[in-house]
Amino acid sequence: MQRNRLNLVIDPWRIVEADFDPARVEAAESLFALGNGVMGGRANFEERYSGPSLQGNYIGGVYYPDKTRVGWWKNGYPEYFAKVLNAAFWIGVDIEVDGEPLDLATVAVTDFYREMDMRRSVLTRRMTVTMRNGVEVSVEAVRFLSLTRRELGVIRYAVTPLNRAAEITFSPYIDADVRNADANYDEKFWEPVATDADVTQSRTRKSGFEAAWAQAVELEGAEFRCGTQPEQVRHTAAVRCEAGRTATLYKYAGICSSLNHVSADLAAAARAVAADALRTGFDALLKEQEEAWAARWHGCDIVIGGDPAAQQGIRFCIFMLLQTYTGVDTRLNIGPKGFTGEKYGGVTYWDTEAYCLPFYLATAGPEVARELLVYRYNQLDKAVENAVKLGFRDGAALYPMVTINGEECHNEWEITFEEIHRNGAIAYAIHNYIRYTGDEQYLADCGLEVLVGIARFWAQRITWSDARRQYVLLGVTGPNEYENNVNNNWYTSYIACWSMRYAARAARWVRENRPADYARICAKRAFDEAAETAVWHRIADNMYLGEDRELGIFLQQDGYLDKEQTLVKDLDPAQRPINQKWSWDRILRSCFIKQADVLQGLYFFGEEFDLDTLRRNFYFYEPRTVHESSLSPCVHAVLAARLGDLEKAVEMYLRTARLDLDDYNCEVAEGCHVTSMAGSWLSVVEGFGGMRVRDGVLSFDPRLPGGWESLAFKVNFRGRVLTVKATPAAVEVTNEGDPLEIEIHGMRRLVAVREIFNS
Amino acid sequence: MQRNRLNLVIDPWRIVEADFDPARVEAAESLFALGNGVMGGRANFEERYSGPSLQGNYIGGVYYPDKTRVGWWKNGYPEYFAKVLNAAFWIGVDIEVDGEPLDLATVAVTDFYREMDMRRSVLTRRMTVTMRNGVEVSVEAVRFLSLTRRELGVIRYAVTPLNRAAEITFSPYIDADVRNADANYDEKFWEPVATDADVTQSRTRKSGFEAAWAQAVELEGAEFRCGTQPEQVRHTAAVRCEAGRTATLYKYAGICSSLNHVSADLAAAARAVAADALRTGFDALLKEQEEAWAARWHGCDIVIGGDPAAQQGIRFCIFMLLQTYTGVDTRLNIGPKGFTGEKYGGVTYWDTEAYCLPFYLATAGPEVARELLVYRYNQLDKAVENAVKLGFRDGAALYPMVTINGEECHNEWEITFEEIHRNGAIAYAIHNYIRYTGDEQYLADCGLEVLVGIARFWAQRITWSDARRQYVLLGVTGPNEYENNVNNNWYTSYIACWSMRYAARAARWVRENRPADYARICAKRAFDEAAETAVWHRIADNMYLGEDRELGIFLQQDGYLDKEQTLVKDLDPAQRPINQKWSWDRILRSCFIKQADVLQGLYFFGEEFDLDTLRRNFYFYEPRTVHESSLSPCVHAVLAARLGDLEKAVEMYLRTARLDLDDYNCEVAEGCHVTSMAGSWLSVVEGFGGMRVRDGVLSFDPRLPGGWESLAFKVNFRGRVLTVKATPAAVEVTNEGDPLEIEIHGMRRLVAVREIFNS
Repeated sequence: MQRNRLNLVIDPWRIVEADFDPARVEAAESLFALGNGVMGGRANFEERYSGPSLQGNYIGGVYYPDKTRVGWWKNGYPEYFAKVLNAAFWIGVDIEVDGEPLDLATVAVTDFYREMDMRRSVLTRRMTVTMRNGVEVSVEAVRFLSLTRRELGVIRYAVTPLNRAAEITFSPYIDADVRNADANYDEKFWEPVATDADVTQSRTRKSGFEAAWAQAVELEGAEFRCGTQPEQVRHTAAVRCEAGRTATLYKYAGICSSLNHVSADLAAAARAVAADALRTGFDALLKEQEEAWAARWHGCDIVIGGDPAAQQGIRFCIFMLLQTYTGVDTRLNIGPKGFTGEKYGGVTYWDTEAYCLPFYLATAGPEVARELLVYRYNQLDKAVENAVKLGFRDGAALYPMVTINGEECHNEWEITFEEIHRNGAIAYAIHNYIRYTGDEQYLADCGLEVLVGIARFWAQRITWSDARRQYVLLGVTGPNEYENNVNNNWYTSYIACWSMRYAARAARWVRENRPADYARICAKRAFDEAAETAVWHRIADNMYLGEDRELGIFLQQDGYLDKEQTLVKDLDPAQRPINQKWSWDRILRSCFIKQADVLQGLYFFGEEFDLDTLRRNFYFYEPRTVHESSLSPCVHAVLAARLGDLEKAVEMYLRTARLDLDDYNCEVAEGCHVTSMAGSWLSVVEGFGGMRVRDGVLSFDPRLPGGWESLAFKVNFRGRVLTVKATPAAVEVTNEGDPLEIEIHGMRRLVAVREIFNS
Repeated sequence: MQRNRLNLVIDPWRIVEADFDPARVEAAESLFALGNGVMGGRANFEERYSGPSLQGNYIGGVYYPDKTRVGWWKNGYPEYFAKVLNAAFWIGVDIEVDGEPLDLATVAVTDFYREMDMRRSVLTRRMTVTMRNGVEVSVEAVRFLSLTRRELGVIRYAVTPLNRAAEITFSPYIDADVRNADANYDEKFWEPVATDADVTQSRTRKSGFEAAWAQAVELEGAEFRCGTQPEQVRHTAAVRCEAGRTATLYKYAGICSSLNHVSADLAAAARAVAADALRTGFDALLKEQEEAWAARWHGCDIVIGGDPAAQQGIRFCIFMLLQTYTGVDTRLNIGPKGFTGEKYGGVTYWDTEAYCLPFYLATAGPEVARELLVYRYNQLDKAVENAVKLGFRDGAALYPMVTINGEECHNEWEITFEEIHRNGAIAYAIHNYIRYTGDEQYLADCGLEVLVGIARFWAQRITWSDARRQYVLLGVTGPNEYENNVNNNWYTSYIACWSMRYAARAARWVRENRPADYARICAKRAFDEAAETAVWHRIADNMYLGEDRELGIFLQQDGYLDKEQTLVKDLDPAQRPINQKWSWDRILRSCFIKQADVLQGLYFFGEEFDLDTLRRNFYFYEPRTVHESSLSPCVHAVLAARLGDLEKAVEMYLRTARLDLDDYNCEVAEGCHVTSMAGSWLSVVEGFGGMRVRDGVLSFDPRLPGGWESLAFKVNFRGRVLTVKATPAAVEVTNEGDPLEIEIHGMRRLVAVREIFNS
């Protein structure tokens, strides 16, 4: 079996751990995490484990406003950082064998196997251990979060004494007395409401969310006694097992929150979920799960022939994204770590618009992507308030850098106040959505209001320079966060101009095509199209955008070329990653780039630049880029593929797709980089697949890197599910819907059911 | 009586509060603070006070490394912020009148008078109150910190029942159970060592300083009983007083720290200080105090005729500086708040070199100023370590932004890592000291080593720009902290070049004049003069220094003129101070300047620029300056006086000299701006007095603003004390030492005893 750096098995559909390594426990907790879109959690062991572990169970949308920690306050900082809470540990099953607790940190583990079956989102663990009292037992634990019953968690936990008869005590429990490891002031975020025999209910401090957790348990031939305590539900039963006989516990947990229930009903609701599941039974629930996941995978799988590591990498990315967000609830979004860890608070960044949206657009249909846009639309008034705090007016909107409910959470001035290109990404996402889906109605429903708020912000934030006789954008931080408070960051200025022009186009479209909506929006937002768009065009047409004509490149920001120009390849490897090895000061002064910046713009607006321009910029900036953001390699993979540099593209692809599986940055223990996994998908579909939409026509330009025998992916486009399969010889496209005209390598054809395009 | 904004009385020699205003209590605690150079404290009441109050008693040099608080960690940040500790409350005297506690927050205050006699540093408070039990009492409390016995505090506390006989209970105490209001994590910084009947001893956590506080008390006709508890020494005695008869308590506190005693001797030492004082008696101690303070004032007083507010302002500044630092201990320095508050931790900033040094140079003699330089010399190795942490090498030294022991304490990257002009100020201070004193020997003793370390830093920090074909200084913050991370800040670049050239000159002087020292220094610092100074000259000679030729000004930084150019006079007054009213973001983007930046350079290096250059820069930058640093107005006052703009000069002078007395920024409750008080002195002596030293010759160019009938000041110069008295008609100079050639309004004459220069 092929193994990776972490000694995990390379397998196309599964993540597999074939031995027990205490040093890998926390990393595995992240990699084997479960989620069903509304809740999720790390792959902690059900039974007691006294070794190092990061406990984590999360309910999407249930957050805590943790008091901001800051050294030196700046006006405009938010009062709190919203954190997704570590919620009750619902998976607990304490086991004793002849009175000795089962704890992998204290027993001898002779056999250990764990797999995440990505096809159905089921986590299975099998192991054989020798207890200190000499009993050998084998254990099989199976766990999943139901995709069909979003408030249900299921566990089957089977114990078999192998060498002699033993008494096995099962003690399934739910513990609501939990904390966040990252609390700013070591506070506990939950307070107990009530605990009953089989259900416990808690309320979050300050934010006042409530949740209830109930368990229903079953163990053949045993009666449970209730050992419930404050904030803990517990049932205990013991069975005597002959050697070779198995005792099997079934545990069904109902997990309900006040997002979906009134507080008074919570306990009953959680109890009902658990009881229903008990009646339905494990096998039927598992079948539901398999069917639901099969449907999820339909329309989004990617098959890479000839490269199992590349294959596993992309499946893992898609799987994690499917586990994290399903688009059923506009209150939810995609936190950078999904449900795999606490870091970054589970809050929303511009990653959602820039990276995740295209994935959900192409794999889950327009309604899911639309929910992501509506999430921002619902927060528009908060974005206006946020801008007012910073001194803007007249309906200008600045979306937060980090948010959970529309309010800014972040407090580094150079990011919070200056990394404003995020506003551009939110405008771009609307364009991207409409380009892909053709749903122009969205402009009238929600989009235009958002675009107007954003354009107004840019118009105020950009200033006229008498010295240059042009408009300038001062004091910003681009996507490359290794530069702060710079002037005329090309990417930010470009997307600002683009946003203003796009807002003006959108206003015209709504006026011409949806007059009633137009009138409503003009009144609601006090929008004076003629006057405002005139300003937007004047600014965009007279904006300073830096260029170096000699090098033929766009200038990342004013003064970038004043820096000592050195290349990443000449950096001593011992000095990397520089964000761990160098002082911040040294990083800032260096020319090294954290992630795509000018190139992010050339990625978004590829159609507006020719290949030579892309090539000059790519080969100037990429060699200066250290890719120390998980969001960096994917953009470079797409651009390298576009340039035909497949060697660089595949290097970048593997770095993004296997970032967590191979733990490139030695930090997967904190959680997986979920949002960048969407970037991995982009690398394949937009990079090697060359997918684009131009004037409503979907086109592909597949190129296989060395070692890939074939590449097949599915995309959802305007009601069809297309499968594109590329081999060195040909590209085969199948269409499960109405006939569609598409373009492959520049050849345009109508695809009814199946077409083959020879290369 | 003329009163000011705070309703304080304007008086030439005293700070006077003639009524009791609970809303002014905390401000008055700062303004009436006492200090004797080694310890000090806020003017808290001796008796219980249950209203809002900031308790503060500080021992210079006794600090606590408070764990750094930061929102987002950056590599290179220090682990702690050194804080001067709030130490034991040694002044406590609880009073009961017929069993009712005296507490100004609960009794009726019918009369209240408090004065600080600045001539002798004695705080006196007289008041008449009606207790709730109907007893009227008058109280007189007198307190001082002895200037001759640096470990002694003295209190005389007299109570007189007025309308009937009453039992007066005196309960003098020392309470060592105190905290800092600004603790980052609400920790207590002191832990108790032992408490005896009359002495309590504590140790600081982590830093392990110890201190003991003892009291000796006396009350005629009364026996004290001891009520000592853990961390608290207390004696209680009651006396029956007929109406109109006064009971007078004398309390002597000995305050000794491990800076000056071994731990085992501390309690005995403190006890001895108190007991000696008791034997000496109040009147004799007061006489010592008056004599010592008279000597302190000799050589540094300033007399302004015709403007009592201006007079009181400058005396207050000089007085506070004299209370804060006496130059007797190189381990001590001047915290921004002196002994008047906790804010800024009592640590050392560049204020010391840029503002305080010239004051002490001219008022206290060369040995005091030299101690301030030696303080930095002693910290040179720490400055080298600090530079290593940021990625510098080969003996480059970066002095900390904020320090108490040579280690960096500050953690805002844009300041800590980037406000590096402080290194230039430390070099400049050496030059300034030698220019004034003629003590070139200091270069050989200490100065050259510091200069070499600083020059090495600049040579590495400055980089070559291929694009400009010049050297550039990227990513800095100038004195104007309303701009961060800018490129080519003119002031920083200029002082960097100046430092390198000065270091080269210093090296040559030591080589030519002190060959043995030269050899020692070259060996100790691995200094290769020929090679290193060649580099320094090459950089300084090819440095980019921004200018705008059209405006004829130096450019504060790259891109400054790209900002929207608006003037402070056009700002809505409701928007000021902008640091309270605007988001940080808005401040950064504006063209408004916090404090002198280009003009700081024109102040330091005035001789290198003609008056026209100064005029153009002054009238460009000053109208854009909001003076929201206490260090700003003084530099502008000096430059305006130099330009003959006496109206602007006096506006700036009053703003600096009466900043705290008039509480311009509504923040004096936190403490006084002690370091900027040295700037007020500069405004008078270098501004209106026009003092300069050129080629070893002291010159003056006095100019009286409207309303000032006369200006007289004393300066200490090379062994003489000169008094310069200017009236509109003439300048009279008296000399208490050997004859000295000086220059007045460009006329050079030898002054033996007294000379009059007609204007």
